[in-house]
Amino acid sequence: MPKASIESLFKKNEKKALADFFTFLKFQSISTDPVYVKETKACADWLAAYLKDMGFTVELWPTSRHPVVFASYTKAGKDKPTLLIYNHYDVQPVDPLNLWKNSPFEPTLKAGEIYARGAQDNKGQCFYTIQALKLLLERDGTLPINIKLCIEGEEECGSEGLSVLLEQKRKQLKADYLAIVDVGIPDKHTPTLTLGLRGIVTMDIEVTASKIDLHSGSHGGVAYNANRALVELLAGLRDANGKITIPGFYDDVVAVSNNEKAKLNNNFDEKAYLEQFGVVPTGGETAFQPIERLWFRPAIEINGISGGYTGSGFKTVIPAKAHAKMSCRIVPNQEPQKVGQLIAKYLKSHAPKGVSVAVDVHPGGGKAVRANSTSKIVKAFEQAFSEVFEKPCSYIYEGASIPIVTELAAVSKSQLVLVGLGLPDDQIHAPNEHFGWDRFQQGVRIITRAIEHLS
Amino acid sequence: MPKASIESLFKKNEKKALADFFTFLKFQSISTDPVYVKETKACADWLAAYLKDMGFTVELWPTSRHPVVFASYTKAGKDKPTLLIYNHYDVQPVDPLNLWKNSPFEPTLKAGEIYARGAQDNKGQCFYTIQALKLLLERDGTLPINIKLCIEGEEECGSEGLSVLLEQKRKQLKADYLAIVDVGIPDKHTPTLTLGLRGIVTMDIEVTASKIDLHSGSHGGVAYNANRALVELLAGLRDANGKITIPGFYDDVVAVSNNEKAKLNNNFDEKAYLEQFGVVPTGGETAFQPIERLWFRPAIEINGISGGYTGSGFKTVIPAKAHAKMSCRIVPNQEPQKVGQLIAKYLKSHAPKGVSVAVDVHPGGGKAVRANSTSKIVKAFEQAFSEVFEKPCSYIYEGASIPIVTELAAVSKSQLVLVGLGLPDDQIHAPNEHFGWDRFQQGVRIITRAIEHLS
Repeated sequence: MPKASIESLFKKNEKKALADFFTFLKFQSISTDPVYVKETKACADWLAAYLKDMGFTVELWPTSRHPVVFASYTKAGKDKPTLLIYNHYDVQPVDPLNLWKNSPFEPTLKAGEIYARGAQDNKGQCFYTIQALKLLLERDGTLPINIKLCIEGEEECGSEGLSVLLEQKRKQLKADYLAIVDVGIPDKHTPTLTLGLRGIVTMDIEVTASKIDLHSGSHGGVAYNANRALVELLAGLRDANGKITIPGFYDDVVAVSNNEKAKLNNNFDEKAYLEQFGVVPTGGETAFQPIERLWFRPAIEINGISGGYTGSGFKTVIPAKAHAKMSCRIVPNQEPQKVGQLIAKYLKSHAPKGVSVAVDVHPGGGKAVRANSTSKIVKAFEQAFSEVFEKPCSYIYEGASIPIVTELAAVSKSQLVLVGLGLPDDQIHAPNEHFGWDRFQQGVRIITRAIEHLS
Repeated sequence: MPKASIESLFKKNEKKALADFFTFLKFQSISTDPVYVKETKACADWLAAYLKDMGFTVELWPTSRHPVVFASYTKAGKDKPTLLIYNHYDVQPVDPLNLWKNSPFEPTLKAGEIYARGAQDNKGQCFYTIQALKLLLERDGTLPINIKLCIEGEEECGSEGLSVLLEQKRKQLKADYLAIVDVGIPDKHTPTLTLGLRGIVTMDIEVTASKIDLHSGSHGGVAYNANRALVELLAGLRDANGKITIPGFYDDVVAVSNNEKAKLNNNFDEKAYLEQFGVVPTGGETAFQPIERLWFRPAIEINGISGGYTGSGFKTVIPAKAHAKMSCRIVPNQEPQKVGQLIAKYLKSHAPKGVSVAVDVHPGGGKAVRANSTSKIVKAFEQAFSEVFEKPCSYIYEGASIPIVTELAAVSKSQLVLVGLGLPDDQIHAPNEHFGWDRFQQGVRIITRAIEHLS
């Protein structure tokens, strides 16, 4: 007898799946706010019970804040590969509440879209993953490969708990493949896989000139102003072509291979960008296209700058100190701490006479992540996306960083891919977050097919 | 019968003078804080009554905040010159209170120094001026020249009230000479007149790049960061020699004449400066000595800078906007608004593509002030200082600005000098402000002699 289709099984179970999804969405699992600690734990407990019911072996890994739900199904056996899937059950805060059309924790289905905090990020993507596994188990009584689920509760507040656990849980996290189901596609009609993220290193900079704030009348033109030293140092980071001037900064950067470029969906609509963000994309190395800069080139950004009097009115002060917060997005083969130290060394060695510069390069950070486009996991998802969308799947990269992904890939020693069905206008992290029930079904189909292709 | 000496008269009246001075110091005439409006008015009333008792015609000129005490004694007659003397009776706030050794409004005489808020700035200098006039009146029954006193109550909060009144009071303020008794001498043993102040123009700068704050992962290296635009614009204001790069900026600057340089006390102790302020004096045009830069060269200072996330922790934001507050000290022949507009034009025209710059050049400001060293008022005070200190008097300039002085000099159409007996370590504007009773007596002698030399 031929296997029932996942599609028809989904239809049969649709009402229950939607009801279960709503239950999941109702938990106020806001990880960053201590007020919701109990509610977040209740969400993890519910999820654990749900997966246990499905036949998974479930553990709650306690952290200093919110537990990690770790669930595994290894009955496929040792000769079958293991796929580790990463999701998170925590959500962003909901402010400003008055802009929501429905209560963020009272999910509402309207014109095919489910409105709720977490509807997409990441409860929606987490739950279509779980439903896919549930349907496979219902249909076949087992799964064709071994599956491990790592569903954390601190993605929206820094992933510290999971990060600390990784080393200790190395054995349990071991897998052949790793799917990060927490990204998106550029539009509803374009099947796309994400092949990589940039890494990151962050730092605080303190410039000290005089030992006390000085009067700008009695010292103007005499004392070196800390604000001046800071703007000169930071302006000196780039040449006229937007290239970083720090010696050695690009040494470890590897040129993008033609192989990587071949299947890229690298449309970048400058007009649309200007319209959406109000700025022309001129913020990087002029020798590269915007999309190349975003995906394949490191970038230094001044995230914060402050010095002297910044309140209302005016104060004629020459500040003793000025501060900046900077981040550097890095690309494959660059080491976050090495790059951080290069920046620190440059700033310190270029301080004007009499001015001192302290740079606190924050520990950790994250290396860039790259999926191998010829790997089995990429091929399996590529095929799944193509089948569900009925068109060829293309690749994109992400300029942003998810430090836990790098660590997870390293610890699990697995081949990685980043997948998801988020759309740019899902309003994640914002009021009226939503996710389409049609995309939920697409997600179920993609996950099931990819698992079948991996088996 | 020869006139009694002012010195012996002072000795006779010393106890009463000290008691009256303490009464004056006890008024909490903090002009910037609305809590002290009544107390400040009480101080003005007391001062007015005191001057009336001495034989002056006194008016209180109301302003929107604190009245100006205007007192005149014109019995010397129309063939005698008129000297307008400027002081102020308001004081700075007293925070941090815990650093005061005595209550700031309970004056305490200790080892020859009077400790109180305003002991020097400016109640001390105001009151030795008044005591000088009082002693002259007691001794001679009249004054040898016409005297007008303009004692304002808003010097520490911007002088707005007096500034608004000037035009309307032009006739009453008319004088031949103007003495601003609100400055100092470099050390206890060096008689010095101040021949000038720099002017000032201030501005707020807003740089706008994107229309909303952006994520530095998804936009880093693509969008132009407002912080970056700001640091580049501000760093571009100077060349490698600290010279301002703005076209036309130095056009109106007049070179210092040898005449001006001849009698200057232009010692600048770089080692002492480093020790006191913790910074080498490398903050201006390298082609000029620090003291020349302070007195005779315009200077642009960044008084405040802010943009993006500046709190604790980190936020990977590319800010839409960044802000700066800047002031420019100007020298004779430069117009504050003209200079402000030159800076604004430069910043706007150098904005990177897609980035807009708004510059709010604040109205007003003040031109630089110069006393004519060959004028009768300068000569009179020079002689008085030399006699009292028993050594030749030298000249200095001030890098700071007192906008009301410029306006007052213009309106009164008078020849001007800036005098005073403040010392750098009197801790004005700070806890434990103090003034020496010996300097108070020197002040009395200098004022009386200068008046005699002018008659």
